[in-house]
Amino acid sequence: MISFADRLTDAVQRAGSPACVGLDPDPARLPLPLLRDPDSASREALAEAVERFCCGVLDEIAGLVPAVKPQVAWFEALGAPGFATLERVVAYARQKRMLVILDAKRGDIGSTARAYVRATLDDRGPLGADAVTVSPYLGEESLRPFLEATAWGKGLFVLVRTSNPGAGQWQVGGEHPFAGRVAGWISSVNAERVGSSGYGPVGAVVGATLATEAARWRAAMPKAWFLVPGYGAQGASADDCRAHGRDGGGGALIVSARGVLYGAGVERAGAAWRAEVRSRADDFVHDLSRLQQPRGGGR
Amino acid sequence: MISFADRLTDAVQRAGSPACVGLDPDPARLPLPLLRDPDSASREALAEAVERFCCGVLDEIAGLVPAVKPQVAWFEALGAPGFATLERVVAYARQKRMLVILDAKRGDIGSTARAYVRATLDDRGPLGADAVTVSPYLGEESLRPFLEATAWGKGLFVLVRTSNPGAGQWQVGGEHPFAGRVAGWISSVNAERVGSSGYGPVGAVVGATLATEAARWRAAMPKAWFLVPGYGAQGASADDCRAHGRDGGGGALIVSARGVLYGAGVERAGAAWRAEVRSRADDFVHDLSRLQQPRGGGR
Repeated sequence: MISFADRLTDAVQRAGSPACVGLDPDPARLPLPLLRDPDSASREALAEAVERFCCGVLDEIAGLVPAVKPQVAWFEALGAPGFATLERVVAYARQKRMLVILDAKRGDIGSTARAYVRATLDDRGPLGADAVTVSPYLGEESLRPFLEATAWGKGLFVLVRTSNPGAGQWQVGGEHPFAGRVAGWISSVNAERVGSSGYGPVGAVVGATLATEAARWRAAMPKAWFLVPGYGAQGASADDCRAHGRDGGGGALIVSARGVLYGAGVERAGAAWRAEVRSRADDFVHDLSRLQQPRGGGR
Repeated sequence: MISFADRLTDAVQRAGSPACVGLDPDPARLPLPLLRDPDSASREALAEAVERFCCGVLDEIAGLVPAVKPQVAWFEALGAPGFATLERVVAYARQKRMLVILDAKRGDIGSTARAYVRATLDDRGPLGADAVTVSPYLGEESLRPFLEATAWGKGLFVLVRTSNPGAGQWQVGGEHPFAGRVAGWISSVNAERVGSSGYGPVGAVVGATLATEAARWRAAMPKAWFLVPGYGAQGASADDCRAHGRDGGGGALIVSARGVLYGAGVERAGAAWRAEVRSRADDFVHDLSRLQQPRGGGR
């Protein structure tokens, strides 16, 4: 069984980029040819349009990026038809050989946590994603069932430090901040599980717009893959993501969702929306290529 | 628009009990007449058995308890058919005039958080529950979209302090613990939104087996309804839940899931499983009736 960290490292090397496209299908922002009137459409019709959008995006980015990050909330908002769409989108991404990191931010304990593992990661369950994002508020006990899934080659990314306004006060306030305890746990469980890539199977979510803090989190979790949201639409640049990686820029998967999926060029591009998504994904990958180079210039 | 806190207070008074039954339908533990062989059943067949179980339970407890708490993980683990079952179970509980508190522990920001509000609380969405449990790890910003839903009579219960092993170290460790910050936020937003019941629409999840801490959390959030898991199967007694309430025992909704749903008496009761669930729910309600009495005896 190849570990998730080794699979991710390999996928990033094959693609030549640490770019991860977030799939946040907001029905109000789909390209016009897919959905003319979101406000009057049924949930079934919305789910169908979302599926055509996501699969179209996957067609365009396959081979270009190593991983995608579907945001579960958008599918759940459409109820059972949305969940069925999520199942098909995840399967399609895997078929196109992209790793699927399900952005679910789940967190519960005991048998409930195991039910979430079944819902998200288990290949005998409905989705069988490669990794899932997990919230640590219920403590170490809530993370253990997901950790067990790493033995079958699955991964998790634990929320450590997000860069949205106000998060810092709660996550890192005080003398022994919660985020520091989470980082300590990640570091210790990875130390026992390092694969041939040099990384362990438990990743950390560390926001992109935290440039001054990022080096500290990297030092605290040297063997963790970082999942880095906040690039592009949320204001961070490739340079802001530099400190999230290890020497040479490895170990940081940078996410862009809205920057690739939306904007007038996509929404109003008519039949050309796919080309517009492709062009935006190309720009994203090109911009990140600077991360592989020394700060301040080319080689 | 009647606030969630006022609706909950009224429902508890009408039922004469603060008992909330958790719906955690584990396919491996359903009564034998509903499902003979969970390991070889399809997800569709499992979802159908779960639906018959949950609706049967709702038939038995209607009128006895004011609220139910479906645990979303168990439904999601069955994929789209499970989600369709959850939609019908929530609708059936509301039809039977029980309040539905969806145990989802969601937490995200911005448009994603709003998508979760749509998925869980919005009456135009698939579930339209009365309230939802929310995880605070992403900070105040992640709670605001749920707070907005209180204007349409919906409620939220924010995870503050859970009693599972190890949670304390992370939630209340250090000088300015995360849980204290969350409690402060709840207290301040409720102060501006107190309804005729004397409670605000933002509740707190505070575990039952924290008797020595409970009085402190109650003092910190005097106008919050508490949702109290951990009774019964997790080891807490009615007396353990006394300090969670206000003077006279109000404002604490006590949850039992496995204690009502499971055990050999239900799983192997054959056609009599419904009577067994009813008897267990009766015992639960009867035991909690001690909360309305002074400690140590009857009136």
